[in-house]
Amino acid sequence: MTDTIKLTIWNEFRHEKSNPAVQKIYPKGIHSTLAESLEKDAKIEVSTATLDEDQHGLNEEVLNNTDVLIWWGHCAHGEVSDEIVEKVQQRVLSGMGLIVLHSGHYSKIFKRLMGSNCSLRWREAAEKERLWNIAPGHPITQGIGEYVELLNEEMYGERFDIPEPDQLIFISWFEGGEVFRSGATWTRGNGKVFYFRPGHETYPTYHNKDVQQVIRNAVHWAKPMVNIPTNLAPNTEPLESLSEKSATFGEAGIKGQ
Amino acid sequence: MTDTIKLTIWNEFRHEKSNPAVQKIYPKGIHSTLAESLEKDAKIEVSTATLDEDQHGLNEEVLNNTDVLIWWGHCAHGEVSDEIVEKVQQRVLSGMGLIVLHSGHYSKIFKRLMGSNCSLRWREAAEKERLWNIAPGHPITQGIGEYVELLNEEMYGERFDIPEPDQLIFISWFEGGEVFRSGATWTRGNGKVFYFRPGHETYPTYHNKDVQQVIRNAVHWAKPMVNIPTNLAPNTEPLESLSEKSATFGEAGIKGQ
Amino acid sequence: MTDTIKLTIWNEFRHEKSNPAVQKIYPKGIHSTLAESLEKDAKIEVSTATLDEDQHGLNEEVLNNTDVLIWWGHCAHGEVSDEIVEKVQQRVLSGMGLIVLHSGHYSKIFKRLMGSNCSLRWREAAEKERLWNIAPGHPITQGIGEYVELLNEEMYGERFDIPEPDQLIFISWFEGGEVFRSGATWTRGNGKVFYFRPGHETYPTYHNKDVQQVIRNAVHWAKPMVNIPTNLAPNTEPLESLSEKSATFGEAGIKGQ
Amino acid sequence: MTDTIKLTIWNEFRHEKSNPAVQKIYPKGIHSTLAESLEKDAKIEVSTATLDEDQHGLNEEVLNNTDVLIWWGHCAHGEVSDEIVEKVQQRVLSGMGLIVLHSGHYSKIFKRLMGSNCSLRWREAAEKERLWNIAPGHPITQGIGEYVELLNEEMYGERFDIPEPDQLIFISWFEGGEVFRSGATWTRGNGKVFYFRPGHETYPTYHNKDVQQVIRNAVHWAKPMVNIPTNLAPNTEPLESLSEKSATFGEAGIKGQ
Repeated sequence: MTDTIKLTIWNEFRHEKSNPAVQKIYPKGIHSTLAESLEKDAKIEVSTATLDEDQHGLNEEVLNNTDVLIWWGHCAHGEVSDEIVEKVQQRVLSGMGLIVLHSGHYSKIFKRLMGSNCSLRWREAAEKERLWNIAPGHPITQGIGEYVELLNEEMYGERFDIPEPDQLIFISWFEGGEVFRSGATWTRGNGKVFYFRPGHETYPTYHNKDVQQVIRNAVHWAKPMVNIPTNLAPNTEPLESLSEKSATFGEAGIKGQ
Repeated sequence: MTDTIKLTIWNEFRHEKSNPAVQKIYPKGIHSTLAESLEKDAKIEVSTATLDEDQHGLNEEVLNNTDVLIWWGHCAHGEVSDEIVEKVQQRVLSGMGLIVLHSGHYSKIFKRLMGSNCSLRWREAAEKERLWNIAPGHPITQGIGEYVELLNEEMYGERFDIPEPDQLIFISWFEGGEVFRSGATWTRGNGKVFYFRPGHETYPTYHNKDVQQVIRNAVHWAKPMVNIPTNLAPNTEPLESLSEKSATFGEAGIKGQ
Repeated sequence: MTDTIKLTIWNEFRHEKSNPAVQKIYPKGIHSTLAESLEKDAKIEVSTATLDEDQHGLNEEVLNNTDVLIWWGHCAHGEVSDEIVEKVQQRVLSGMGLIVLHSGHYSKIFKRLMGSNCSLRWREAAEKERLWNIAPGHPITQGIGEYVELLNEEMYGERFDIPEPDQLIFISWFEGGEVFRSGATWTRGNGKVFYFRPGHETYPTYHNKDVQQVIRNAVHWAKPMVNIPTNLAPNTEPLESLSEKSATFGEAGIKGQ
Repeated sequence: MTDTIKLTIWNEFRHEKSNPAVQKIYPKGIHSTLAESLEKDAKIEVSTATLDEDQHGLNEEVLNNTDVLIWWGHCAHGEVSDEIVEKVQQRVLSGMGLIVLHSGHYSKIFKRLMGSNCSLRWREAAEKERLWNIAPGHPITQGIGEYVELLNEEMYGERFDIPEPDQLIFISWFEGGEVFRSGATWTRGNGKVFYFRPGHETYPTYHNKDVQQVIRNAVHWAKPMVNIPTNLAPNTEPLESLSEKSATFGEAGIKGQ
């Protein structure tokens, strides 16, 4: 019971309402397709939230009950309130795992955690992507072979403006001649972050078994530890006895600010 | 001539005006003491800027003419305008070096580039600090021996909430029983970032020759490369001919968004 | 059942036979004290092996049945056969976890995996060590507070000649004025490596509950994944059709070497 | 004068003697082609050394006078003496830069410094390689655009069994469907290591201007610092006064081993 991972899948949920081609692939939204896949794992307890809900579906109670958050956004990054982004960031720093998918590279939350622009080159031409497994011993690639192949995807190419990852997990090859660091991990505060590239809304990527497996693995990997000592800038007493001070300092220099 | 590094030293410059003990140590401000030391290096062209100047002394012309920026702030981080912070961040991402000193760990610009809270434990008790040189082969430690010793400093202790550094340069030992990652480097976009711990305003730290040497080395290390290809999210043509597509996709799926 | 981790604890087992002071602390050897502590974890299946056994107790069958190997050695590193070291290294590269303790920093296997000299400064003076928890969100520090304190230990000081770790877990403070990166992780091939500093033979360090907890956590963390695709330098057919070649190359250039 | 970098280019120099196709491309050997290109840089002082010379041309005097060593080997890795490899490794650890080219991934020296098998997949089919510049702000990519294109090269594909690099510099795209981390840096001891993939002997790769530029940049980048404090495992006196010890330890516990 205590082993259950509380997962919230957040989706912008706009393309699915306005674009019939997308609606055909994800009739109930990308979040629902992901939820159906992840609910099959008895250790994952799935909820969903979307942009147009109150507080984007991410009020304090929801966030405090989320162990791992998945994020898909694209055309409405700017509509996500800064206040919610701040809260999500603080929750990551205190341990919540975060999985950012595809066009989420330009979301406020991802850019804020990375500190860089997260820009990349791109092309929408239904081309072939092959994600090479660079980290076969990593939990995120369990059950995945030497590569994952997707027949039709949007191209994302380097240079991807991200800080050097803790670990690089996948590198993509694209038919049109580009490469991309398509799976990578970082730590921010006590939280784990995984970026996973595939998932343009006009292709059935989240129905792919390998893609589902990678995301499921990532949910397990990103699960927070339970007993994290907190330490927010305490003014502390010395653990050892201090020497006598021979010099005179300003008040600030002796007793603090 | 083209080798000259244009350095701007930014200082909050408040303690020096209000606290006589600080004023005695830095009569013209911390920035001026640093400037005097760094001007001795013929390859460094020094300017200064302070919080209370117009646009904090960091207007676009100044930023565009800055190769490396040093940042010292403490009691007035909140007074730095978000707009200027955004501009400084973008300048770092496009290549400007940034050296953050001491209490600058809590500055808006450092937290923004790190993506974490940058919190730490602290104590103001004029105690001894010994900075161990962990990276003797790194440009930043050239001319520095096995450690730098400071008789009186504020204590900063772990856990320092920062992303894993690209490289750890110094680890501090404190008399009262703590340790601290007191010198560390990161890359953000095309810019180099160095955090260096020492320099509480009530002690004469920036008059110390070793501390001056580390900062001078860091200025040289953080100097940007000159010819950086820019690549801000271009929508690009394929470099290779693409295969015929057998499936039909939504408009978005073929011709872009 | 399938979740069980097969752990082998390897110990040089010499000091315990020749030095009465050590014998008093570890009457059946350091490996036995560690084994007693780790056997309490129902998910760990413990075996031990020592230097003076045939093939140092690490024949192929033992190695092939080991998920995680703990290594303690000190005065007889040179007596470990290169052939066994080679086999241990290959087993790590194919996924076995390795936990190197204390003076094992100079073992053949650790130096081989690191590629550097792994030298450090040291002093034997029963002084106080405080290991600061730098990675409170990491599996290895679960259940550990802000630091672990050991009243009497050998001092190890920087610079520790190791490659930049994947993640730094502990930094030690020593009474005599030094610091040390006392817990750190690396990946080699598919295997995880953890170095943990404490454990000089003349102090009761491995009876300490926190030290035992860290080692137990590390055993779980270092457990290998089960399904790792192997890929040892295959000469492979193209996945995509290649273009016609217009130039003529040497035979080697067309058909391989 | 003191700025001059003493470079030694080491080449196996066997294919050029036995294979007419290779001889046509590199009549005086790969080392000579590289030397001609690098000698044009007034700050680089070039020497060469080859396998069949006495001590492989790398006696102590040569090594002690080498700031940066380039290594190309392929069919005769096993003929390089372990004694010389040990000396090269120690020289790297004390600060010498090392640039390993192409099939040098399987050289004794590279495997020893990495600690892993350095295996990869490969194919000899004169196919197109495009090296994407992942680190446009890095000294090694100065003067290089968004990518380097080579019309005909041997394919090297992932997974490349290397430790996570300090920094990833290039990722290659291959016509046949693979990707490869084709430029990467590591630090070992005080020395910098750069691996650069291109350069199969049957193609004119080292005549390519971009490839020459990358190697020239790497020579400058890998240059050692001049004043590195040495610290090889000293037994040291405390820097601070130690507390009285209340317990009794074995002799070893008080006075050392």
